[in-house]
Amino acid sequence: MTITRDQVLDRALGLAAWRQVADAVEADITSGRLKPGDRLAPESQLAERFGVNRHTVRRGLAMLAERGLVRATQGSGTFVETAPVVYPIGLKTRFSEVMAKVGREARGELVSAEHVPADKGIAEALGIEKGSPILQMHTIYRADGVPLSFARTCFPLPRFLGLDQHFAAKGSLTKAYKKLGIEDYKRLSTRITARMADPAEAAQLDIAPGRVVLIISSINVDLEGVRIQATQSRFVADRVELTIER
Amino acid sequence: MTITRDQVLDRALGLAAWRQVADAVEADITSGRLKPGDRLAPESQLAERFGVNRHTVRRGLAMLAERGLVRATQGSGTFVETAPVVYPIGLKTRFSEVMAKVGREARGELVSAEHVPADKGIAEALGIEKGSPILQMHTIYRADGVPLSFARTCFPLPRFLGLDQHFAAKGSLTKAYKKLGIEDYKRLSTRITARMADPAEAAQLDIAPGRVVLIISSINVDLEGVRIQATQSRFVADRVELTIER
Repeated sequence: MTITRDQVLDRALGLAAWRQVADAVEADITSGRLKPGDRLAPESQLAERFGVNRHTVRRGLAMLAERGLVRATQGSGTFVETAPVVYPIGLKTRFSEVMAKVGREARGELVSAEHVPADKGIAEALGIEKGSPILQMHTIYRADGVPLSFARTCFPLPRFLGLDQHFAAKGSLTKAYKKLGIEDYKRLSTRITARMADPAEAAQLDIAPGRVVLIISSINVDLEGVRIQATQSRFVADRVELTIER
Repeated sequence: MTITRDQVLDRALGLAAWRQVADAVEADITSGRLKPGDRLAPESQLAERFGVNRHTVRRGLAMLAERGLVRATQGSGTFVETAPVVYPIGLKTRFSEVMAKVGREARGELVSAEHVPADKGIAEALGIEKGSPILQMHTIYRADGVPLSFARTCFPLPRFLGLDQHFAAKGSLTKAYKKLGIEDYKRLSTRITARMADPAEAAQLDIAPGRVVLIISSINVDLEGVRIQATQSRFVADRVELTIER
């Protein structure tokens, strides 16, 4: 490992080494040498390039992740963040259709499913008694493998018994509904706010803790107007731009 | 100034004094002794109550402001944050009507107005040539005196010459439009994302820097469908919950 003249100069200027790593990677991104979606060189290579140890590289990349410039995954490396997906919120928003339109591969992943009694908020949203049994699913939606949203979705039981297994198999709620004979559904209400992600959400979404998430609370009804689904989705604010469709 | 037994105990436990101030005020809020919208006691009184100096009080309150529990204003004191306003985003959203419905007094304030050439983004939004003259206004919308949003709004010139003076006089864009003979208008498009407030926005909105703002970019048209207004509003995320109207 050799120290280049540039490195010596930077050190002489008193910049912290992790800061130099962050600045250099940022320059690669803004100049276009690294493009949205590109994977960064492994930590060991970056360490050699900058003449620092891996801990220093990690700190520099963490700083870029906090600013939303890169996305650190567990296991497959660090990537340049991609341009936000324009995401219409309408009467009939279907994640897979939205993604197909913009040429991205969509996938819904089941993180967990359980039968629990409805708390007050969910009972009101679904128009059922508090304490009634519901199916509660936690899901992640990805576009080209990048997590866009982490959601908690609740369905009344016994009507939606087994929906979780259909969802896990199909990766799409629309397809899972069809398996239970629900050919179509629509949006009854949507509420939007935003806050910082908590650590659990950040881990699921591959974002630094404290990044901003859009919180979308929605209720869907079947074609008879019966409430079938109450969802709270947390979208990574940097990765989507919501549009309102008419 | 006397030191109480509680204060001595807390110090013995090793809690920083500013942290104790924050915890005590938070307890006043969660217990309901302080209600949404209440003004906190002046810094000098809090300093005496906790046996600390004013700098320590200020640090404790700054921590609560960072968490969105209180709102520090320039000059009139620190207030407990109020419950979020439910704000419908529809074809015809009128700030003053929305606020009247929920029993809040609405006011739009002109911060600045200037004639500038349209940049690329505004030109596209308004369907005019880049560099064409526009009226650019910065405004703050308040509900019962609490800032909800800080917006940059652009209008094509010469059609909207003088609109800023009508707005400043009336505190309402709808009323200002009427002065120029525009009886009605509607929403063409709305885009929503979120990020942390920058320091200038935070100062205008009475929030701690780094609090989350919802960014709403919208275009309005007159009844002939001509684009008349492009706005980027920054709403304090803690103070509003957007709902989508049909």
